[in-house]
Order: sequence, then C-alpha cells, then structure tokens
Amino acid sequence: MAYFSRKKIDALQHLYKINLINSCSGFKSANLIGTKSKAGEENVAVFSSVTHIGSSPPLLGFFCRPTTVMRHTYENIKETGIYTLNSIHLDNFEDAHHTSAKYKKSISEFDVTNLASEYKKDCFSPFVKDSPIQLEMQFVTEYPIKENDTILVIGEIKGLYINDDLLEDDGFINLSKANITTINGLDGYTIPKLKKRLAYQRPKIFKQ
Amino acid sequence: MAYFSRKKIDALQHLYKINLINSCSGFKSANLIGTKSKAGEENVAVFSSVTHIGSSPPLLGFFCRPTTVMRHTYENIKETGIYTLNSIHLDNFEDAHHTSAKYKKSISEFDVTNLASEYKKDCFSPFVKDSPIQLEMQFVTEYPIKENDTILVIGEIKGLYINDDLLEDDGFINLSKANITTINGLDGYTIPKLKKRLAYQRPKIFKQ
Repeated sequence: MAYFSRKKIDALQHLYKINLINSCSGFKSANLIGTKSKAGEENVAVFSSVTHIGSSPPLLGFFCRPTTVMRHTYENIKETGIYTLNSIHLDNFEDAHHTSAKYKKSISEFDVTNLASEYKKDCFSPFVKDSPIQLEMQFVTEYPIKENDTILVIGEIKGLYINDDLLEDDGFINLSKANITTINGLDGYTIPKLKKRLAYQRPKIFKQ
Repeated sequence: MAYFSRKKIDALQHLYKINLINSCSGFKSANLIGTKSKAGEENVAVFSSVTHIGSSPPLLGFFCRPTTVMRHTYENIKETGIYTLNSIHLDNFEDAHHTSAKYKKSISEFDVTNLASEYKKDCFSPFVKDSPIQLEMQFVTEYPIKENDTILVIGEIKGLYINDDLLEDDGFINLSKANITTINGLDGYTIPKLKKRLAYQRPKIFKQ
C-alpha cells in the first residue's frame, strides 16, 4: 500500500493534496443548494458535504468556507433563512459541477447552465427543476469550526418532494433508481447501483 | 411527486421516518471506525457520517449520538485520542453492517465477524485488515450539537494507507476501482462506478 505520513501530506503540492484528502474519506453526497437574496438574485451551487444529523427533528448540516465562491449561498441563507437542497443526477451533473465556477453575485447560475429554477408553494428560494429529490430547508443555527475557519450550517426540513417511483413502502428512498450521483473527491461523479439492503442487526448468540 | 410537509414528517411512524430522512440527503460515506480502550478492548463500528472538513490541515468529522450503541467508539476516542477510519468495500459490507448490533463493550466486533484487526507502525488503535483505504486519526476537538444532543467529533489525519492501484497521478483516489461502497439510508449498500471526472470550472464568457 502507498503510505502518506502527516509530514508527507503537509508537504504535498496543493492540487495533489486536495485531491487526495478530498477522496480518502469515501463517497460524498451530491446536492445543489438553491437560494435567493432579499434583492431577488437567485443562486445555485454544488455542495458535497450535506450530512444527516438527525431525524427527530429532521436536521441536515453542511460545511462551508465563507471566504470562497460558496459565500453567496451562505450570505443568502443568513439573509433569508430559507434554502433548498436538490439531488444531482445523471442528466444534470455536468451543469451542477459548473456552478462551482466563480460568478459575480449578480449572475445567476440558472442563467449560465441548463439548470432551471422552480418555485413551489410559498418557498422563498428556488428549487432545481427535475431534481428527483427536493427539500425546503429552514436555517436553524451555525457552528463556527475554529480549527480551519469553516462553518457547519444546520437546517431543518420544512418540506420534502420525491419522485413517486423512488419511494418504497417503508420510507426508504431508492436513490439508485433515479441515477442520483455521488461525488468522489473534488471532481469525480459516480453512479451507484443498489447491491443489497440489510436487516436491522442484533447480536449473534454464542454458546457459553 | 410525493410531498411530505414538516407536519406530516413529524407524525410519521418511527421506522418510516428514519428510513425517509436518512435517505433524502443523498449517498453517504461508508467507514468502519476502529478503536481500543486503555484496558485493551478492541471495538469496530460502522459510521455513515464521516465528512471532509478541510485539507490543510487534513480534518475529517463525524456525528455520533453518545446514548446509542456507538458510545464505545466515542468513549475509546475520548480515552485514547486515537482512532482509525477504514473504507467498506464489496467483500466486507455485510460484516461491516453487523457492527451496528448492540454488543457489550467486552465483546469485540472483530471476534463476532470476519473482520480482522491489523496493527501498523505505532498506531494504538486497530485498522481493519484488507480495507482499501486506512487512516490513522488523532482526535482534535468536539462540538456538541445542542439541537439534538449529538456530537460532531473532529480529527486530523496522522497517516494514510491506500491500495497502490487506486491512487492516480494527481492524488485522486479512484474509489470505484476498489468497489468501495456508499450507503443509501440506514441499510442500503451500493457500489458506484465512476462516470466522469470534470475539469476545474471557470465562468463562461458572454458577449456583452
């Protein structure tokens, strides 16, 4: 096996290092976050760090670095409290990835890609049309991560839309059925196929 | 599309709700966390919330709920400061999932599954033998998440082992090549195939 000590990691060339460290923890969720400023400017940006925090209440978190291109998303969330999460799938992953380009706030990623915004019920922020799963999120709180000046943003689910054919009888959403992507590293888009669902695990019984 | 309002989500039957909310944010990373107590009791447990926080320094986080079965992992990390992350792949995902069963601390999951522990260099905690990616982690800090009594545990990478054939020239680890799994919901194990790596994105140039 190749071995990288911490000393070797710290000394790596920048691009090599971010590729390596971004892919070593496994596959990542792939979501587009849709927001709108109070002034009405729409924004949509790709995030690979959306993580389940709890189901009761239904809480999801993501990490952002306010000093990067993602700041429009963060600014809009802080300004309005409302954002959307939209799954990325085989048909739109190239447009989704393009939202990582650094556009000025006055330019909407919806205007420079084939992604289309969609408004539903009274949600202030735009959803991404045709995403198989769309969530309306309400900002709850943030935790500044002192160790590297990132922020853990936590929101609760206000509403959840799912393509009917993905939803199984016990609430399981079959992500593979919709060709939803998962991200490898910074730039690798992969399509998983469901291998198996496993039962709830109880301890094995041994002869004493 | 099926629609779940927040009111409807809160009223769902428990199992339906946890299946739904655990699968709506997309695919999750699949890792086994290896620890050892000061008294020498080995523990290994599956986690689906390991998330990249930053590359310089190389920081990874995961969420745990100290009141559940995962507490042995948390207790050992707090006691010794050292843990390992080990990717889950096609050959061991059924054993990996079994580590979610609630065993007493005196019973090691290594003894009740086909997972084998492995010690490398001076790392105090066990790795999972034959995992394609193995990380030695040093506990850095924790953030209690007040909203649902979970804890964000943050660690830094001390050492990183990768099967040679997964590592590409620019530091990208090709997870698909090793049949590394990604988790759908609570119990769905999926195998992704790499579709495409995309270039670093720059804004498109428009005619004014």
